[in-house]
Order: sequence, then C-alpha cells, then structure tokens
Amino acid sequence: MKPHLPQWTWQLCLGLALVSLLFLPAAPARAGTRSDKTLDVTAFGAKAGDRSDTTPAVLAALTRCRATHATKIIFPPGRYDFWPDRATEQYCFISNNDEGLKRIAFPLDGLENLEIDGQGAQFVFHGWIIPFFLDHARHVSLKNFSVDWGRTFDSEGQVISTNADGITLEFSEACPYDIRNGLLVFTAGSKNPEQTTTVRGTELLYPYGSLLEFNPQKMETAYMAKDYWAKNGIMASDLGHRQVRISVPHLTATPGNVLVFGPSHRDCPAIVLSDSAGIDVTGVNLYHCGGMGVIAQRSRDIHLDRVQVTPAPGSGRVVSITADATHFANCSGRILIENCRFENQLDDASNIHGIYGQVTRLLGPDEIEVKLKHPQQFGFDFIVPGEHLEFADAASMVTYHQAVERLNKEYSRVRFKSDLPQQIKLGDVVADTDHYPEVTVRNCYIGSNRARGLLLGSRAKIVIENNHFHTPGCALLFEGEAKYWFEQSGVRDVLIRGNLFDNCNFGVWGPATIAVGAGIEPARRAESRYNRNIVIEDNVFRTFAAGRIVSAYCVDGLTVRNNRFERTSDYPATGQTVPRFDITDSDHVRLDTN
Amino acid sequence: MKPHLPQWTWQLCLGLALVSLLFLPAAPARAGTRSDKTLDVTAFGAKAGDRSDTTPAVLAALTRCRATHATKIIFPPGRYDFWPDRATEQYCFISNNDEGLKRIAFPLDGLENLEIDGQGAQFVFHGWIIPFFLDHARHVSLKNFSVDWGRTFDSEGQVISTNADGITLEFSEACPYDIRNGLLVFTAGSKNPEQTTTVRGTELLYPYGSLLEFNPQKMETAYMAKDYWAKNGIMASDLGHRQVRISVPHLTATPGNVLVFGPSHRDCPAIVLSDSAGIDVTGVNLYHCGGMGVIAQRSRDIHLDRVQVTPAPGSGRVVSITADATHFANCSGRILIENCRFENQLDDASNIHGIYGQVTRLLGPDEIEVKLKHPQQFGFDFIVPGEHLEFADAASMVTYHQAVERLNKEYSRVRFKSDLPQQIKLGDVVADTDHYPEVTVRNCYIGSNRARGLLLGSRAKIVIENNHFHTPGCALLFEGEAKYWFEQSGVRDVLIRGNLFDNCNFGVWGPATIAVGAGIEPARRAESRYNRNIVIEDNVFRTFAAGRIVSAYCVDGLTVRNNRFERTSDYPATGQTVPRFDITDSDHVRLDTN
Repeated sequence: MKPHLPQWTWQLCLGLALVSLLFLPAAPARAGTRSDKTLDVTAFGAKAGDRSDTTPAVLAALTRCRATHATKIIFPPGRYDFWPDRATEQYCFISNNDEGLKRIAFPLDGLENLEIDGQGAQFVFHGWIIPFFLDHARHVSLKNFSVDWGRTFDSEGQVISTNADGITLEFSEACPYDIRNGLLVFTAGSKNPEQTTTVRGTELLYPYGSLLEFNPQKMETAYMAKDYWAKNGIMASDLGHRQVRISVPHLTATPGNVLVFGPSHRDCPAIVLSDSAGIDVTGVNLYHCGGMGVIAQRSRDIHLDRVQVTPAPGSGRVVSITADATHFANCSGRILIENCRFENQLDDASNIHGIYGQVTRLLGPDEIEVKLKHPQQFGFDFIVPGEHLEFADAASMVTYHQAVERLNKEYSRVRFKSDLPQQIKLGDVVADTDHYPEVTVRNCYIGSNRARGLLLGSRAKIVIENNHFHTPGCALLFEGEAKYWFEQSGVRDVLIRGNLFDNCNFGVWGPATIAVGAGIEPARRAESRYNRNIVIEDNVFRTFAAGRIVSAYCVDGLTVRNNRFERTSDYPATGQTVPRFDITDSDHVRLDTN
Repeated sequence: MKPHLPQWTWQLCLGLALVSLLFLPAAPARAGTRSDKTLDVTAFGAKAGDRSDTTPAVLAALTRCRATHATKIIFPPGRYDFWPDRATEQYCFISNNDEGLKRIAFPLDGLENLEIDGQGAQFVFHGWIIPFFLDHARHVSLKNFSVDWGRTFDSEGQVISTNADGITLEFSEACPYDIRNGLLVFTAGSKNPEQTTTVRGTELLYPYGSLLEFNPQKMETAYMAKDYWAKNGIMASDLGHRQVRISVPHLTATPGNVLVFGPSHRDCPAIVLSDSAGIDVTGVNLYHCGGMGVIAQRSRDIHLDRVQVTPAPGSGRVVSITADATHFANCSGRILIENCRFENQLDDASNIHGIYGQVTRLLGPDEIEVKLKHPQQFGFDFIVPGEHLEFADAASMVTYHQAVERLNKEYSRVRFKSDLPQQIKLGDVVADTDHYPEVTVRNCYIGSNRARGLLLGSRAKIVIENNHFHTPGCALLFEGEAKYWFEQSGVRDVLIRGNLFDNCNFGVWGPATIAVGAGIEPARRAESRYNRNIVIEDNVFRTFAAGRIVSAYCVDGLTVRNNRFERTSDYPATGQTVPRFDITDSDHVRLDTN
C-alpha cells in the first residue's frame, strides 16, 4: 500500500526505488538520459505528427519490453494517431462499461515495473479501440500525455430555434450525420470508413441513446436539464446547411444551448485497470473516450495525480468523456486522487463500490446459485474462492466459501465450507467483504458534468478534503442498493473536510449537496443503518435559493460541524422551499448548522 | 476417411466397431439395453414434456461422460426445452455465421466416441443459444431428434391487401411486434422476457434485415421474388387486430402470399462442427435455427443421413431455418450427404469452399501480411503453420509457410521458409491448398428455399447423383471469387449424374440451372480456367418457358451428354428468349444437347 505523503515525497520515493533497482550494480545513469532500459517508441516505427498508425510501433516496443525487461517507454513530443485495425484484441468484461471483443492500443497485461512517459504527447484514437488495458499489471506508471478521438462517440448540435414542429439543430463538420427512414443517424463521415470490431457490414455508425442540454456559456449542463432517453432513435428531417429539425414530444431546449446525443454504449473506456496493483496515472489529460476515463476492477493501490477530464481545448465541444471520469469496483489497498479536474463528462466524477450478486437458487445446505444482475457487471469475478462474503437482507454474517463454479457470465454456483444459516433466502444479495480501499480525494475540481460528483462506497477510511465541487447533482452520494445497479456500499469512516461546495444541485440528479441513502424501502428504514460514521466539517457550502445541504437516512453516526453556509443568487430559485437538512431513521446524529 | 458404401453397410460397420470397442472383455450387451456406458438424461434431472430447462441436465450428463467415458446419451421420447440462462458460454468464430459470445446447449468440445440419441425427442430452444457445438470432437454421432425454437428469429406476415399507401400484413400470435418511432420492431412478446448473451438492457428484440415474399400454397419463394434489404428498418403503422401497414417504396406483394422478415444476424446456427472429425448426423429434423443448419469448419469425414431442414409440421410457417441448410469451409476427408431434405430455408442448401485472405502488406522477401475480408470470416484460422498455400492473381505457386502470427481476427503475418516469388503483389489472395473434401450428395430433395442449391468448391472428387432439385436460383453453382465473399473454389473432378432438375430458376438467384463461373472480370476471362472437368450426364432437366440450362465461363473440361430435356408450363414465361446453353472462354467442351 502506498504511503500517504505529500506529492513531492511520493515521487521522490518512487524515483529512488527505480534508480536503486535498475542501476545499483553499474554506474548511475544521469536523470533523463536514455539507456537500454528506456525505449523510444520512434525506434519502433512511430513518427510524431505524420498521422500514421502508431499501434504497431507500440506493440513492437512492448514486445521488446517483455524480452529485455526495459522499464520505460518514451514518446518524443507531438501527435500520435492510433487505429484499431492492427491492434491486439481480447474479450473484455469491464465493470460498469460494456463487455466485448476489444481492440487495445496499449495491451499492458502482466507487465511489471514499467513507465510510459508521453512527455506531453497527444494520443489521438480512431474508431472502436481501448487506449490502455492493464490486466494483472504491477507497478506501472502512465504519465504526461493526452487522449482524444478523431470523431467523438457523442454528437453535439447547437439549438438554433424551437417551435411547435420541433427543435432545429446545427451540427458542425465534426459530427457527420444522416437521416434514414426518418430517423437521425450519426456516421463517421465519408472520409473515415474504418471497419472495426463492433461493426457489421461496411459502415461505422455512432449509435446514441440519450439527449441532454448543455449551456456552452457556462460550460456545464443547462439549469435543471433532464436526461431524455432515446433508445428507439429520434425522428428528424434534414433542413440542409447542416441543420436538422428533430421532433421529440415534450422536449424543450433553449436557443444557443447545445443538445448532446450521448452514445448508447460504453465500449471504449480510456484506461482500464483489471486485477492490477501499484498503478500511477500522472499528468494525463483525457479529452475524450467512449466510456469511463479510468475504470479499475479488483485492483489495489492506485494513484491519480493531475488527471484532467475536460473537453479538448479549442475543440468547441461541451462534453469531455461519455461516462464516469473514474470508477472503482471491488478495489482495495489505497486509492489516492489528487490535483485532478473532472468536468463536463456525461456521468459521475467517481464511484467506488463493491458488487452484489443475487441468490437465485438454494442448492443445498452449503450451496447456492448466485446471479450478477446488472448487464454491465456480467462476467465480473465478484467473488473469488477463499473470500469472506456478506449476505444482505438476511441477517448479516461472515463465512468462508470454498468453491465458485462459473456457469457463464451471469450465473455461478458457490459452495461453502460449512452449512449456511437458515435465514438466507432467494433474492438476498451476496458480496465480497474482504476487500475495501482506503480512499483519499483532495485538491480536485469536480463539476459541470452530467449527474453527481463522488459516489463513496468503501468500508475502509475515506477522506475527502480541499476539493471544489460544482455538480448539478449531489456532490457526494453514499448509496448502495440491490435493485438496479447492485452496487455494494455502506461506509464506516468518512471525513469530509475543507471543501468548497459551490452552487451544487443546479440540475436534477439528487436531493442535496451531500446525500446519504441506499435503496431501502421506507417501510424498512427503521431497522437499517447501512452507512456509518460520517463527519462533515470545516467546509463552505454556497447554495442558491432554497438549496438542500444534507439529506440522509439509515445512518449511524453523522456529524455536521463548523461549516460555513453562504446563500448565492447565481441560479434561479426552484420555487420549492425545502429544509437545508433532512435526516431521518438515523442514530448518533450531531447537527451543528451555524 | 469413411468408406463409400450403401447406407445399411455403413451403419452395420459403425455398430460393430462400437460393440467390439466397448464390450469385448465382458459378455456382449443386448442391443438396446442400458449399461453404464449409456446415460439416460432423465437421470440428471431432465424431464420430457414439463417445459423445464433441460440445459443443466445435459451439462451434468456431459460431465459424467467425460469422467466415465460413457459412449451414449439417450433421451426418452418427448419434448425437451432449452434456455440460454444456465448454459455454458464461449466466444465463437463460426465461418459464414456471426461471431460472438455464445451460449451452448450441448458443448461437445474435445469429446470422442459419443453418440447422442434423441430417440425421436423434440428439442425446443428459446432465445439466443446454439444447440450443438462440436469443437475438436472425434467420432461423435447425433441422431433421432428435431430442433425447433419457441419464437423464430424470422417473422412472417400474411399479405392482406396492397394499395398506394403500402402493404397491409397480418401477423399471427407467434410473431409479436411493436411500432416504435414509426418503425416496425419484432419482440419476444410479454410472456418471454428472456435476457441472453446478445441482449443489452432488459428486452429481447428480433432484429430483421431483409424482406422476401413466399407463396404459401406452393410452399416456396414467390415466382421471381427479389430480396428487399431493410437494414434501416421498415416504416409502419399499426391498424389493430394484429394488422400492420408497411410503407416501402417499390415493394410489391400479392395478397395471400407471405412476407418474411429475415433476421439481420446469423447468431444461432443449429449444429456447429469446428476442427472435428468423424461426425455423423442421422435422422435429425432441423425445423428452425437462427443461422445455418449444419456448419462445419476445418473438419473432416462428415456424414449427414436423413437430415431434414423443413418448416415444423403444423406450424403454419413457410420458412425453415434462416440461412444455408449446410455449409463446409476448409473441410477435408469425406463429406457424404444422403437421403436429406433441404427446403424452405433462407439461403443455399450447401456451400463447400475454402477461404481466401488478401495480401495487404509485403513485409519482406519471405513475409507478408494477410487480411480476412468478409466480416463473417473474421477470426477463422484459414491457414495453419505447415500447410501449402496458393496465391491467386499472381502466378500460381506452392510453398510451405512456417509461421503465422495472428494480430487479431482480421490480420495475420505469415513468414515463409523461403523467399516468395517476385510477382506476388498487394491485393492478391492466398489460401490453404492442402485440404479439400471428397463430396458426395445423393438421394436428396433440394429446393423451395431462397437462393441456390449446392455451391461446389472442392478440388477433390465430387459426385452429385440421384437428387431432386427445385431451386429458385441455380441448382448447382461453381464459383469462387475474391471480391465479396472471398471463397476459394475451383473444382477438378465433378460428376453430375441421374438427377432431376425440376423447374429450377423460378426465382432471381442465378443465370441457369447449372452455372459455372467465378468473380473474374470479362476482360480477364480468356486467361483463366478456374474450374475444371465437369461431367453432366444422365440427368433430366424440366424447364419452363425459356429456361437456361448451363451457363459457364473459364472452364477447362465440360461434358454434357445423354441428358433428357423437357419443357413445362408450370410457371409463366419470363418473356426473355435465352439460349439453353451459354458457354464462353472455356476449353475441352463437349456439348451434346439432345
């Protein structure tokens, strides 16, 4: 587990460790010089700025790395393009993103002690490809590069006018489209007929599943804008001059704003960590990807420093990436996120949780069948032989299991060392209870995105400090439920200190700046205390109109003290009068609201 | 390789071999009695007729088989249902069908010396599942059962009326549908919300990609009906009472006929043979599947006897399965098809061919990059180290290659033992030239389906005798091309004898009853003799109006002798006057037309 030290200390320690490991027997190399332990990707055929496919050069460099145990790959500054055509492929189950046979530009499976230093390079990807996939990797550092795409997976149309016939939108050349059988279809344009993993036939289409309005002046989701789900497409007519009129009942929009067509998939997250440990991502700008920015599963000891999820400068786009900026499922060790900026992405800034399976059959006194419920969790190895498990909605218990037989990506059979308690019943949920990460998030800007800020669901210590939140939904959400997402949560020790909560809740995603809840039916709330020991102190809450600050239920241990509350007029009043604090079904609550 | 003997001899030999293998040390078991080498699937939880999921029982029986080397699994007569939910899964590349992560009801990978005897059982599948997958299996026999589906992958609507506004169709309860955003969508109905491998979200939809008119009185494709491709959906309005009006420019249909909405995928073939040998399929009725009936790749010694591809009796359906009845890619040894019936499926009765990759890069004097071109061939191991290869459109040559490095499902690098000839160039195609099957097709009925009869592309001996053909396209087609399908062909020794060609070409798929061609541009035909040595003798050709009997080019060795030609009035004249024989750019042609 990585030590909790100031940033310069951290880097120094890492630097020293590497130096001693590599160069102790020989004369120490000067910092920055190239050795046979450092590979320059241009020696393998990559060339900055020439728009050629860099993928084969990266593969060749990685092959050399594996053979020689080189510890660093560097990119001379400039732009490098990546296409899926000649990339390796692997069938990937990536939690909360979409499974599939994926092309991978940097397949870092099984690698140890490797640093990839872009030295400020711009990596531009094309079509369906995952930039970085770290599978069973250890002590890998990714640094100093940006990630963008030639054609984004979302499409943005400026609202020109609205009337009874519909909304007129104008698309830039960056968003090629077509009208087919009366429906709006987004295409790759004529110049880019790439055929990749997810394409059938000969045309690359960019399917969409949702619509959301953004305010390009404020560079954030429009005030109280709601998601419109468009899974059957949007009826449209072409007006020429790149203008299209869409007809959607009850959808309104403000001229000058931007309607964003969000992709119906999460096929191409930017950085995937799976069963990996000791991963640093430093100085990386994620301007775009088709899924989450950094998604980690069953991994430990992850450090994000100066990671910026933000729309590409000069692109004119209002959206950065198309799903959560970061996401951690069944992780452990230490998660440290500092000096980061997570803005304008199409989902939360982070979500840290475990995963519940549901008991679908009782096969014997010591055996059950369990099923993963959410399709984006299918295939996830959420329990591993030897772990302790908990059951929820039966009495809580702790027991080893000894055998897991996976039937397929949905169903497993689990046999235990001893008989299970009688009260376990069909519909109960089960999760690993051995692995939770310590979490620190500090010195970050989090906001302007669709939905929420941080969803916190680890049972180890959590510290959220010195951040600036400006989220349209909750800034902080403590959840966990077994109805739709099946995400295990239930915090035990949380400190929220020294943050600025700046006009949060200007959108529709959540009841308060800080919300503590879970998918617990009102009738059952008296008996549950799912989240515990949350301290909220020394923060500044700036709220417009009648903003709700804390909404919570089923908490044991909630302290609110020494915060400053400021009223702003930065957004219109909602017209509702709500209490700033709404806390029910909880014990050991200390509420100091002045 | 299996001997070419009459059917009773064949079965006797097989029976004797099994008996001696199993029971020689002990007293011989009486025929038909059960021993510990025979497993009854009901002992593993299966129950005929109770509509429960038979998949777990089959898996348990197969697990026992592997442990005890049992040689037979039997089903007591009755109906058995299969759902994908608890089936094993595997990512499958199945030539000329669609790749994907598949659920499999009978996963027979690596099994040897096994007979599965349905004893007349009806197997009914639900949703996205492959009934039989034989991967690296040897000496496996499948017999005496039928395969059908709860809801078919295609949908059939009866034409009620046509007018300027469109065509009014009526769907039976067997084809649930919905109109969404003005487009016709086929569903599973409300009773069957199965969520399977290919489903995202919570609803199972049945996507379609084509329309074709059938004549339900004649139980065949309508006279001169053409495919209508509907990849962007069909605009429709609901008239109530299960009637729908579709609006498709230029599409006509005759009231009383049936419009078939063909699926846009081939996800669920019925019986898949991959890298297997010595496979018998006997007495099997394939009433439906979502892909090909029997698809074999890189397999040898395959015997189909009394396999019937036909619409389920009493179902009222005009379509049987949704793609080719049988298909063989890169197979070898012996293919014997006898006493079969292939009718009313949505593609050819059989296609026997190799697969071409295209040269995409010249990497060195002894190394090339090759690419598979057709998406349904992606992932197919079309060349294997040590094989001889041929190059086409460069001078023909034979050379060993020694290394194949697969980059992904599309691209491979191939390094040869010695330098390649200079004339090889980008765009040439390359294929294995070591493996071709001997083919016999006899005593079969082939017809009433969409498209053609047999596509013959093996260079070993082919005998087509005593069959009854009634195909809307060519009955026999010799092709091979490197433009769209990239199928290697080029026959060397074909005997077509004693067949009845009964009013073929009542549809649009092909220029003649027997067509010999290849995707060779007219300007290059003088130099190519791609197909060779075809003898057509002692057949009866019944043709309506001005039917063309043989159309051929680029053939070396074509003999037509001692056939009988009869004129019928069973179909309207097409109005065209065409010669019965149209043979160009060929050598050694003997044409005896009386």
